[in-house]
Amino acid sequence: MENITIKVLAKRLNLSTTTISKALKNSYEISEPTKQKVFQLASELNYTPNVYAGSLRTKKSLTLGVVIPEITDNFFAEAINGIETVAQEKGYHVLVYLTHENYEREKAMLKEFKGGRVDGILLSVSSETKDSTHIKQLMDENIPVVFFDRACDDITTAKITTNDFESGYNATCHLIDNGCMQPAILLVSQNLSISNERLEGYKQALKINQIKFKESHALLCNEENNSLVAIKKLLQHKRRPDGIICSVDKLTIPVYLACKDLNLSIPADVKVISFSNNPSAVILNPSLSAIVQPAYDIGKAAATALFKALSKKKIELADESRVIFSTLVQRDSTSNFNK
Amino acid sequence: MENITIKVLAKRLNLSTTTISKALKNSYEISEPTKQKVFQLASELNYTPNVYAGSLRTKKSLTLGVVIPEITDNFFAEAINGIETVAQEKGYHVLVYLTHENYEREKAMLKEFKGGRVDGILLSVSSETKDSTHIKQLMDENIPVVFFDRACDDITTAKITTNDFESGYNATCHLIDNGCMQPAILLVSQNLSISNERLEGYKQALKINQIKFKESHALLCNEENNSLVAIKKLLQHKRRPDGIICSVDKLTIPVYLACKDLNLSIPADVKVISFSNNPSAVILNPSLSAIVQPAYDIGKAAATALFKALSKKKIELADESRVIFSTLVQRDSTSNFNK
Repeated sequence: MENITIKVLAKRLNLSTTTISKALKNSYEISEPTKQKVFQLASELNYTPNVYAGSLRTKKSLTLGVVIPEITDNFFAEAINGIETVAQEKGYHVLVYLTHENYEREKAMLKEFKGGRVDGILLSVSSETKDSTHIKQLMDENIPVVFFDRACDDITTAKITTNDFESGYNATCHLIDNGCMQPAILLVSQNLSISNERLEGYKQALKINQIKFKESHALLCNEENNSLVAIKKLLQHKRRPDGIICSVDKLTIPVYLACKDLNLSIPADVKVISFSNNPSAVILNPSLSAIVQPAYDIGKAAATALFKALSKKKIELADESRVIFSTLVQRDSTSNFNK
Repeated sequence: MENITIKVLAKRLNLSTTTISKALKNSYEISEPTKQKVFQLASELNYTPNVYAGSLRTKKSLTLGVVIPEITDNFFAEAINGIETVAQEKGYHVLVYLTHENYEREKAMLKEFKGGRVDGILLSVSSETKDSTHIKQLMDENIPVVFFDRACDDITTAKITTNDFESGYNATCHLIDNGCMQPAILLVSQNLSISNERLEGYKQALKINQIKFKESHALLCNEENNSLVAIKKLLQHKRRPDGIICSVDKLTIPVYLACKDLNLSIPADVKVISFSNNPSAVILNPSLSAIVQPAYDIGKAAATALFKALSKKKIELADESRVIFSTLVQRDSTSNFNK
């Protein structure tokens, strides 16, 4: 099959390649009848511009890079839906990169972006990321970076997050209001902004309710320990917590399984609330009370902020930061039968 | 910041750009000491090749396109994990496109690929796709396409699928073995290969067990009807089914909710088994029996078949087709207390 280029179109119509190129770009310099002829032939021959030749001229790849820790998590899957909706409207393509919560992998991926493969990055950092030099280096090359959900405090750019402190506070107050005297919180990282904010909200709620904070009740569940074993150990303690806040959804399953194994009833013995966007929450045993994050809207807002930066010569990305509120949805896992 | 190009490296080392270029490609024409010098300076200056300039020369974009119906589904999320593992090893990038089960959207996306943005496509078609002309056109342009999970029968290429017929058959036999006399099956499409195969397996199991097939017990739940309403109507019929096979995971939630609303107990009144990769299956109320698809392996095999095609001048992709078996996992939703 013949490769249909601008040259081929020019030859067939007996026009210059410049005229064809301008006509395809709908330039005002070309007459309407000529444009019509060009469009018609281009359509008949199924002409498609070579994107890479175009990229070299315009220095735009029309591609966004999305870097996330994992994809088998409803929060990130929904956020990608939001990002993709905006990208599609703008005629952009979406490259997805998974760090699997690994800092070295994140660093290597970001280094690759320097070649011009993407016009900008939407980033949610890994739970291992402490140092942000790799992100600063990318921004020094004039590649705009927008954080969503998980941001680095020391970098000035747009950050689209939810109200993590208040959500941690509200989840804890909800447990206390429903009778918990000793709620615990499960975390996945000691570095992540979201973990720290949610933890601070938890501590503040304890303080307001005159409950003493116990180090052992802020349990770190990461790759290095087995979450199920760690949670069972926590629940077997003689002064075990009577409520649990899962700061990320993937901890819900080991909490439910630990309670089942230990013959602890949810919510009678232990009340549970999770940061969760899992649609199955309604049919769990028992149905799960949750802090539901506006994942789709966060993705959409992050992409919108990035496109705003790409459309202008200079833009202060930090001004585009937004906090989009989460909502607390009560279900059976935090019911108080004595209330 | 200075833009570090091959020219810059050449100037600093007092070598020709051809020598630098060959050294960076580890050519045998260049001496080891020279290569060492080039590598060292390239590393010091943080040199990154311009990927688009490279693409024009090599005609390779080092990018795969992955086209899937949706991402908030554990099957596709896990498949992307598998694809991404292989792509990462090969130094490839992964563009993700979501059709949202829309045929027109799928067609528009595939047309875009003609510009050289991707070297090959991994495709799972939308539930609306009946005509495969848009896929044939892409293959005519020498862009290899590998199907995974959802394939088109009339296209000859590699197809990585699971044993849909047997899985439908096994799920149905499992319900019958556990006491169901009238199992029903819920489908999402009348076009999809996976729906049809699973339906045929269901019919075959009924036949073997001398149960008459009823049209009304093969219920289509798609965008046009409200699944919850349709399922409730099915379950309110005087000769209602006593077992349900959800041919895709997203139908599990409306089935559980319909049973709850109608005060039907799972599994006492209705037994339920789903094609599901949802890790929450173990903590549902009741825990869900499932046909678990090897999603990660399917993604990996599809990407591997595509790379095999890309590495050779000519390859018969159809020979790379594979069927990877699903497994039936029994949990409480199909328990037979009378057994």
